[in-house]
Amino acid sequence: MHRHLPWRLPQRTPTSNPASDALLIDRDMRTIEISQPGGPEVLRLCERPVPQPGAGEVLLRVRAFGLNRPDVLQRRGLYPPPVGAPDIPGLEVCGEIVSGDLGGAGFRVGDLVCALLAGGGYAEYCVAPTGQCLPLPAGLSPEEGAALPETLFTVWHNVFERGQLRAGDTLLVQGGSSGIGTAAIQLAVAAGARVIATAGSDAKCAACIQLGAEMAVNYHTQDFVDAVQTHTAQRGVDVVLDMVAGSYIAREQRCLAEDGRLVVIAVQGGVQAEVDAGLLMRKRQTLTGSTLRTRSVEFKSGIARALREKVWPWIEQGRVRPVMDTIFAAEQIVQAHQRMEQGQHIGKLVLRWA
Amino acid sequence: MHRHLPWRLPQRTPTSNPASDALLIDRDMRTIEISQPGGPEVLRLCERPVPQPGAGEVLLRVRAFGLNRPDVLQRRGLYPPPVGAPDIPGLEVCGEIVSGDLGGAGFRVGDLVCALLAGGGYAEYCVAPTGQCLPLPAGLSPEEGAALPETLFTVWHNVFERGQLRAGDTLLVQGGSSGIGTAAIQLAVAAGARVIATAGSDAKCAACIQLGAEMAVNYHTQDFVDAVQTHTAQRGVDVVLDMVAGSYIAREQRCLAEDGRLVVIAVQGGVQAEVDAGLLMRKRQTLTGSTLRTRSVEFKSGIARALREKVWPWIEQGRVRPVMDTIFAAEQIVQAHQRMEQGQHIGKLVLRWA
Repeated sequence: MHRHLPWRLPQRTPTSNPASDALLIDRDMRTIEISQPGGPEVLRLCERPVPQPGAGEVLLRVRAFGLNRPDVLQRRGLYPPPVGAPDIPGLEVCGEIVSGDLGGAGFRVGDLVCALLAGGGYAEYCVAPTGQCLPLPAGLSPEEGAALPETLFTVWHNVFERGQLRAGDTLLVQGGSSGIGTAAIQLAVAAGARVIATAGSDAKCAACIQLGAEMAVNYHTQDFVDAVQTHTAQRGVDVVLDMVAGSYIAREQRCLAEDGRLVVIAVQGGVQAEVDAGLLMRKRQTLTGSTLRTRSVEFKSGIARALREKVWPWIEQGRVRPVMDTIFAAEQIVQAHQRMEQGQHIGKLVLRWA
Repeated sequence: MHRHLPWRLPQRTPTSNPASDALLIDRDMRTIEISQPGGPEVLRLCERPVPQPGAGEVLLRVRAFGLNRPDVLQRRGLYPPPVGAPDIPGLEVCGEIVSGDLGGAGFRVGDLVCALLAGGGYAEYCVAPTGQCLPLPAGLSPEEGAALPETLFTVWHNVFERGQLRAGDTLLVQGGSSGIGTAAIQLAVAAGARVIATAGSDAKCAACIQLGAEMAVNYHTQDFVDAVQTHTAQRGVDVVLDMVAGSYIAREQRCLAEDGRLVVIAVQGGVQAEVDAGLLMRKRQTLTGSTLRTRSVEFKSGIARALREKVWPWIEQGRVRPVMDTIFAAEQIVQAHQRMEQGQHIGKLVLRWA
């Protein structure tokens, strides 16, 4: 049904589209699909029709898109897209508004925006709910802009809304050198919190410290429970941001202070976890978690408004900045997935269309 | 150090106490102490000096006191009183204000009040923080008044504050025929919520239904997960009030709807619990718990204010009423503890001084 393309496509000239009263857009676009569940090599460049925005949506010409761990799960066949979402992977892009419903947010055709998607970002064009678009912050490249949405929406909701992190609190960030981790460290520090991070190498720990963490624990060489308890004089931390679950939950419970909150956003260590209900009660701990992708447009638009009010000023002041590991050409998607799976990266992997 | 008394004491005439400018009070009082950790028979009537109220406290002449499961744990040596609390058990009383700091709550000497204590309720006199006293609601006997504080403070905080139960929500109450359970059913119904209860016999289930539960599950003959899922058309419940923990936690997780809250207030089934972190994330569940006894006077006084505003009108309207299993004479404390441990009671066990 869809034409599959060799990795190098001939350059095409945009064709005039009479349906558009704005920019010239193509009728077809290059995109990257999952040809079958499997390793990075199943990702395949193909051609598809440019999608049409509906009510409350804009069409974006994608300059760059971010790679996220859920993309890897989706590629392996372990994380099907939500009902109504494109089968094309890709949860975040930076691109210019081509057409659509500009809403009341003050956007204009041609504006470069960062958008959170439920899928479809691995493409030259994508449709985004207008409420899930934020202006590209001044001073950031489109590649940096594409590195923002997934981490910032996730961290804002889980650390500040769900986890209720406040100025003066201490946050424990697992995987502090990941895209999520680097964003969590910076946002927490900008909000006046103290941060302890864990990471899997001394180089990654150094990156966490550079971003503002007070302490970084190499979990290959040190027990993070001991390290946290010692560093906090046995008080523990107020919030834990966890993407491991499994055996980590019980250990994280021992890191939590009274009234501490543990927020699970991924289960890289498995879903079965042990909890000490006595400790939960005595310290009045809260254990919660969430996934972002399946939430409603209204919900995500609410996070976008909070980000624009609270976090966009921090970005424009230079207090928060995406940590860029590597920018690949879109045609290098296989290599980009390989790099994520090798786990040596620090910060975000972003792909751009030439 | 303290005189130990036979179970029948001679009647004493109150002696004049020059320190009191209000009512005549005794210098010594009868009280019930835990002579050593063990079964009900270790409870022993003895004589102690009447305690002295400090700043922010009143002295109460106890008419009746409630029995609670933590008293049993304390008697067994498994639940030491918090620092600063009396070694005498007893977490709730109804009595008249004899003297002390009446605070700004409009109390007068001679008023009958219901009080939550950190201990010391098994006595003819006790000291209570003034902020933890509430007026005996019109139409209730002192024995009924003594049955209110522990259940209402616990249910209000855990179900409504921590669990955020709202009108239209559905609550699952484990142990629906217990003191806590009967209070939780009535408060939830009064607040406009729907209730499913579990209990250990058909008679207990009938009592839950009579109190307003839509459905009661006999957990000896039926799986409560299936029953809840069927009754809610697979939606699940918004809040679970749990006093079992252990293997119940994983099953309760499967009863929770999206955004559901599980609140643990006791661990009768053990502290080690399994949690499915994937389910937690996908349904955005929250697992939390608390203990009341160790909280500050300020905290408990805040609950007392909320109870007076929200729940006291329900009691005075007859919508909430303590479910009284048995009223014993204080000298029958051993029998009262035996009855609690046998687990055949429905509602509260209360003791009164002759």
